[in-house]
Amino acid sequence: MTTKKNKTLKKLESVEAFKKFVSEFQQSSSYREPIGFGIARVDRGQVNSEKILQATYPVVNWKENFGSAAVFLASLEASGVGIDVSGSEFVSSINAKFIENALNLFEPFMNEADGDKHRNIQVIAMLEEVLGMEGFDVEVDYKIIFIFEDVAPKSVESAYLKLYALSLGKAPLRSLNLNGIFGLLTNCAWAQGTPIELDYLREHEIELKLTNSYPPIDFVDKFPRFLTHVIPADNTRVLDSSKVRFGAQLAAGTTVMPGASYINFNAGTTGAVMVEGRISSSAIVEAGSDVGGGASILGVLSGTNGNPITIGKNTLLGANSVTGIPLGDGCIVDAGISILEGTKVFISRDEVAKIKDVNPSFNPDESKELFKGLEIAGLNGIHFRQNSQNGQITGSRSKREVKLNVELH
Amino acid sequence: MTTKKNKTLKKLESVEAFKKFVSEFQQSSSYREPIGFGIARVDRGQVNSEKILQATYPVVNWKENFGSAAVFLASLEASGVGIDVSGSEFVSSINAKFIENALNLFEPFMNEADGDKHRNIQVIAMLEEVLGMEGFDVEVDYKIIFIFEDVAPKSVESAYLKLYALSLGKAPLRSLNLNGIFGLLTNCAWAQGTPIELDYLREHEIELKLTNSYPPIDFVDKFPRFLTHVIPADNTRVLDSSKVRFGAQLAAGTTVMPGASYINFNAGTTGAVMVEGRISSSAIVEAGSDVGGGASILGVLSGTNGNPITIGKNTLLGANSVTGIPLGDGCIVDAGISILEGTKVFISRDEVAKIKDVNPSFNPDESKELFKGLEIAGLNGIHFRQNSQNGQITGSRSKREVKLNVELH
Amino acid sequence: MTTKKNKTLKKLESVEAFKKFVSEFQQSSSYREPIGFGIARVDRGQVNSEKILQATYPVVNWKENFGSAAVFLASLEASGVGIDVSGSEFVSSINAKFIENALNLFEPFMNEADGDKHRNIQVIAMLEEVLGMEGFDVEVDYKIIFIFEDVAPKSVESAYLKLYALSLGKAPLRSLNLNGIFGLLTNCAWAQGTPIELDYLREHEIELKLTNSYPPIDFVDKFPRFLTHVIPADNTRVLDSSKVRFGAQLAAGTTVMPGASYINFNAGTTGAVMVEGRISSSAIVEAGSDVGGGASILGVLSGTNGNPITIGKNTLLGANSVTGIPLGDGCIVDAGISILEGTKVFISRDEVAKIKDVNPSFNPDESKELFKGLEIAGLNGIHFRQNSQNGQITGSRSKREVKLNVELH
Repeated sequence: MTTKKNKTLKKLESVEAFKKFVSEFQQSSSYREPIGFGIARVDRGQVNSEKILQATYPVVNWKENFGSAAVFLASLEASGVGIDVSGSEFVSSINAKFIENALNLFEPFMNEADGDKHRNIQVIAMLEEVLGMEGFDVEVDYKIIFIFEDVAPKSVESAYLKLYALSLGKAPLRSLNLNGIFGLLTNCAWAQGTPIELDYLREHEIELKLTNSYPPIDFVDKFPRFLTHVIPADNTRVLDSSKVRFGAQLAAGTTVMPGASYINFNAGTTGAVMVEGRISSSAIVEAGSDVGGGASILGVLSGTNGNPITIGKNTLLGANSVTGIPLGDGCIVDAGISILEGTKVFISRDEVAKIKDVNPSFNPDESKELFKGLEIAGLNGIHFRQNSQNGQITGSRSKREVKLNVELH
Repeated sequence: MTTKKNKTLKKLESVEAFKKFVSEFQQSSSYREPIGFGIARVDRGQVNSEKILQATYPVVNWKENFGSAAVFLASLEASGVGIDVSGSEFVSSINAKFIENALNLFEPFMNEADGDKHRNIQVIAMLEEVLGMEGFDVEVDYKIIFIFEDVAPKSVESAYLKLYALSLGKAPLRSLNLNGIFGLLTNCAWAQGTPIELDYLREHEIELKLTNSYPPIDFVDKFPRFLTHVIPADNTRVLDSSKVRFGAQLAAGTTVMPGASYINFNAGTTGAVMVEGRISSSAIVEAGSDVGGGASILGVLSGTNGNPITIGKNTLLGANSVTGIPLGDGCIVDAGISILEGTKVFISRDEVAKIKDVNPSFNPDESKELFKGLEIAGLNGIHFRQNSQNGQITGSRSKREVKLNVELH
Repeated sequence: MTTKKNKTLKKLESVEAFKKFVSEFQQSSSYREPIGFGIARVDRGQVNSEKILQATYPVVNWKENFGSAAVFLASLEASGVGIDVSGSEFVSSINAKFIENALNLFEPFMNEADGDKHRNIQVIAMLEEVLGMEGFDVEVDYKIIFIFEDVAPKSVESAYLKLYALSLGKAPLRSLNLNGIFGLLTNCAWAQGTPIELDYLREHEIELKLTNSYPPIDFVDKFPRFLTHVIPADNTRVLDSSKVRFGAQLAAGTTVMPGASYINFNAGTTGAVMVEGRISSSAIVEAGSDVGGGASILGVLSGTNGNPITIGKNTLLGANSVTGIPLGDGCIVDAGISILEGTKVFISRDEVAKIKDVNPSFNPDESKELFKGLEIAGLNGIHFRQNSQNGQITGSRSKREVKLNVELH
């Protein structure tokens, strides 16, 4: 922790001056390059105001915008709140002096900060407006967060920043350390995006109920919903906000129907996918695939022995099917059948040959016709069916297109 | 387009005068009998105010109330906005003069316009009140729409009018041309019934998030929800508004449970049905049937090769079953099984005989015992099961009542 | 009905005086020990104000707090509204005199009434505050309810009190008489917890739609949602309020996911359970069990011939499975299979022997290897699978832990 000081940084007059300032500061011991950083509005507990219930980031920086990181750290250091870049993350309050300093440093770009440009500067400019607003206290309602190492998050604020990075597609699914996140987050009642401590409801139940002011509770969970924090692409649709947890990732063009679907945190799609079933935490579905009505893709917490599932491109999971193994491109799982790690699948030698054509690395014993699910996990172009006359689960070369990964050939 | 003029129509003094006026106007070239018409309040884009995001009709006229259509066209023509009845549809703004003219023409019925009576007149009377209300601009916030030909809708307003006709049961499911509707409608974020352009959220994200005024988004879709526009019958229940898309039809007595159900647009029920599963777009379920928990009825967009599915009366689709063919009355699909177009179903000769009794037109080869799903599509009284000892999918005469259509005998 | 009188009861000065008063009143003919009682705020019909649409209880007394019951009955009797304890239930309005009298009788405890202590007194104290509040009328907006006999409820207020007793875990599931409850409750449109008569929407549709004030309808049902009335335990999660109907019971630690789950009234969990499927009305799931994604447990209204289903402890229902029989502890139903009352299950003699080890009362014929579902209902430690090569449904000794009930040994 550096010594606290409270001084005003000089207004920078040119882009060159800005670059010089940033460059020098980045060489100093006060700077450390963050993986991610941002400024969040925080919701605090109604009963326990020390408890952070939610952190809302208007702008998330992830392996980018290090100039702004330098400005923020320098402005913080000068603002008297003190900084500490020695740990895996640094979470701090802000104050009016921080805002003033950041504005002074950002001065050369102030006129261009609009729309998609200089969004960190827009955040600071907005915070300056907030200083004059009734009902907000910048020292209480906002936090600045830096993540320096991708280890288990230590704060609600850094946990949210990682969930944002996933949901905004700035970090790949399954790439971040989220260990212990359930322990960090508080189980709350959520009313129209605002988290409410259950204890607050308990303490005020009599008054709230008798005066008809009990809040309309949408759900009770540790996580908020995706749509509370993320604006999807123009061609992405989520027909029910309850169906996608914050921390999920939806690639542009994905549609999530409201029937039996659900996408958990750290799960989702990497291309346009039709989702009418469940994508459990850790599962990923690639472009052009279709998760049929009520289809389940199991997750590491729900039946896959810790092997996370990826479903390849252009694969169809039929209505009410269950998939417990990874699948490649161009597969079909017929409606209503379950393919788990231990499911035995009959594939005739003819069909094995055809499947080998689209899976160069698949080389089973010549005579083998019965495969466990795990043995054929991740292969392209398999059509899984159940013979309706003898109940046999079979695999055969599917008629869906398989685009072979050229790097494998 | 007729020449614009701006004149006040004379107040009609009697029902006879009204009839005479209407009759004469209907003979004129300014009139054309509409299939449907109505006046809507429109939600416009927050960023692009030319974009209509939603049209809310308090009253929908569908093959009815042609006197009101004449009054509206005559009042419009006189109001100076100009009319054009030459195309498949006509969408226009309205103004104060239109309201004044329509009131003058409707004068003979004004005193009776209440409750279920003369609802078009009530709309005009309400618009007159709106003229004096803060926050509304009749020339911006309302539109009048006439559909003359059932071709692909050309406007958001006419698309909504058709969806209303379906959802209100004024037009049969699958009877209207909805081609291109996905292209017409804008994908929006919906907050408590109000559509919000995604671009608006993007442009204001920083301000909205930092000032705790980000709207609570219920869903992101091109379509609104059924319950935002339609008041169901007293004995109809929809336990979660996300489960029924606008454009679906729910006959009185239908119950839609919140588990795994969904009813898409241009799909629904024609009698009292218990719905705990999915009725895909284009699928219809008739009176007394039961779509079990998680059951899927496939749609033309999801696996039926373009053949829309009708499920007859008093038929039971078991929990987690999947149905990909039309079924007649009194059928049962057992829990967890899938009957698709290509599914082979064994029906013993004894059972074929019993099934023929309730399907006079069903005359398979004498020796035939193995049927593809499509070959027995639409038949009454079949019970589909899977033999739990050998996996065979079988059909037999169900024990559910089949009411034979007397017209077939 | 006692004669009406309107008198002020004397303020009690000590705990002894309170005990004496209660004891004497409880001997009088005006008192009868209730099963349950409480004071509710009621929502009345917007069109028909005589119709009670919802009753919200801040405090529910169930086989407890009989001193408060005596205070309430004595205060009511003196307040001039008259009491009647002769029927199975008694529902009454309250008035200012009732509040004054109850405060006088509760006087000795007034200072301690806070937090979890003396919550009935807190209710009366809050009602005294309501007397001075704009927009409330204690004679119209509140009711006091006593249930003396557990027969079919006769009022909306008593039906709600019973549903509260179930949802708060004060009465065991399936223990209360709810006959006729569907007839008592009114099908309403619900907007953020407030019930709205469908007729109100009909009568005001034109005005509401044209002035952009149509309420955002969350659902249409006779029952409200669980989270509108009940504050769950800190470790209980309900990720979508639509998924749990009021009248369901969720033991602490239960998680209800938003995919394909639903818990109906008079159904639920008696320990920490992961719920990703459907628990139909009358079904109960015990501690440590897991209802997989899309799994269905049938209810007495949906396929079990009236036999309510209990699922024992530590049992796993796989994704998209269907269970139509009770199961014991430590069972597994594999993903995607259906075990109904009539399903034939093959259990080899070896496995029968192992299953007998954890089910002392299970003594089938020596040679029996084929069992109907009902014949093995409620047994512990069975793993149900479908052989993927011949379609046979089999039972075997599961590998999940079975904790034998010591009382059975």
